Amino acid sequence: MIPKFIHKYLKAGTRSSNPKIILLGAGPGDPELISVKGLKALQRARVILYDALVSEDLLEEAPLDCIKIYVGKRASFHSYKQEEINEMLVQFARQYGEVIRLKGGDPFIFGRGHEELEHATNLGVEVEIIPGISSCTSIPALQKVPLTRRGMNESFWVTTACTRKGELSGDLALAARSSSSVMILMGIRKLAEISRTFHLYRSSQTPIMIVQNGSRSQEKFVLGNLENIVEKAREANISTPGIIMIGEVIRLHPAYVEQAQKMASVKIA
Amino acid sequence: MIPKFIHKYLKAGTRSSNPKIILLGAGPGDPELISVKGLKALQRARVILYDALVSEDLLEEAPLDCIKIYVGKRASFHSYKQEEINEMLVQFARQYGEVIRLKGGDPFIFGRGHEELEHATNLGVEVEIIPGISSCTSIPALQKVPLTRRGMNESFWVTTACTRKGELSGDLALAARSSSSVMILMGIRKLAEISRTFHLYRSSQTPIMIVQNGSRSQEKFVLGNLENIVEKAREANISTPGIIMIGEVIRLHPAYVEQAQKMASVKIA
Repeated sequence: MIPKFIHKYLKAGTRSSNPKIILLGAGPGDPELISVKGLKALQRARVILYDALVSEDLLEEAPLDCIKIYVGKRASFHSYKQEEINEMLVQFARQYGEVIRLKGGDPFIFGRGHEELEHATNLGVEVEIIPGISSCTSIPALQKVPLTRRGMNESFWVTTACTRKGELSGDLALAARSSSSVMILMGIRKLAEISRTFHLYRSSQTPIMIVQNGSRSQEKFVLGNLENIVEKAREANISTPGIIMIGEVIRLHPAYVEQAQKMASVKIA
Repeated sequence: MIPKFIHKYLKAGTRSSNPKIILLGAGPGDPELISVKGLKALQRARVILYDALVSEDLLEEAPLDCIKIYVGKRASFHSYKQEEINEMLVQFARQYGEVIRLKGGDPFIFGRGHEELEHATNLGVEVEIIPGISSCTSIPALQKVPLTRRGMNESFWVTTACTRKGELSGDLALAARSSSSVMILMGIRKLAEISRTFHLYRSSQTPIMIVQNGSRSQEKFVLGNLENIVEKAREANISTPGIIMIGEVIRLHPAYVEQAQKMASVKIA
């Protein structure tokens, strides 16, 4: 099940009596947003299995002889099945003592981190979790939009757009009825359906924000409302992956605040 | 408005032409869970205003001559009003160039970080945000409980128990009807009401977990269900502050998994 080119690495290791896997969150993109604990783990790493959304700069923190294997879903030459990743983690841990599973954001939010933990635990391999800054909470903050604001809302809701079967999640309609700020992951392709669902329960003027490549140099964002966001996203050429945020707190975005201030000063003049 | 003992510090600084405030998230408690960017900011800090939930170890990272002022809500000798904190941030930034507002968790999740940003921005002081690992997402992960798991749920919801007026948040009933993992902050005192609300929509066997002092050495947790959690929390002497989590994913907690494995092995024997 494990691809052939991996075998040479596994043979090279020596069997460890104390195997361990670290599920490590890399944060939202900016390499300096990894935790201090996470950076220390990378700096002593012997083996790293990493995903698509992980920064190159972080991989460079590892020692020169560290084995780095890309197991992301966007590989062009080999795409790993989850079962293969699970198995590689256990085998590398047994041969090298410690293996790092480096994931974008936080390892336990919408990743398959827990499946990796379960497989390893069942085989008697210890798993440590080092949380990361999740993109769903930090990307709005980096846009200076708070997830909550006293007097505006009391909660935020983070959801994927679709169920495992590809249907629109039933939780979306409940989220739409709440006062929550709603963050939707993996939803760019369903933008039209999402804004229609929210429009059933919230005003057409409800603000919506899309952020692509959040916290990276290529960051791109679009602001709109439930009525015009599909068109605005098309004009701005938004593509996946990105985060959709819906909620009144988006009115606190500096672009809106500046606009409001300009309008106020025009009135006074 | 600013307390007298602060004035000596303000006088000592020299006026800066480029004032800046950094809203910095300290993470959930373990000082190594701050971001690398955040640690670097602390290590060059001239002034830090910090909250109750911030680790002493982090404050020690600052240079020896750094001015450190505790502005948390649990101060015994002086409790600052939000307006005073807002004003101190601006004045310190103007005198010392950069001031760090260090908050537990993430500065934009249920803190009043955005109010601080707004006040400073209106007065022309630049604000930078360095996100932190929020306790609401990381404390379950450190208990090895994922917020989401494929096939179990598609979303998680983070909410305060109460509105600003002290009433139970209306969003709670919507959350209870969803498949969401629900994290409730500042809810320990409302535990009985919360479990009653969830019981209206979810089975009495729905698991619930309370974590107090998450990620710290004094961490304490209780597992139960909607029917017995109030009693269990009392037996375990749970006090504030703590996080309440409700959702099927809690069945993945190692304590439950081990229990299930033991029962399975008894049956086989």
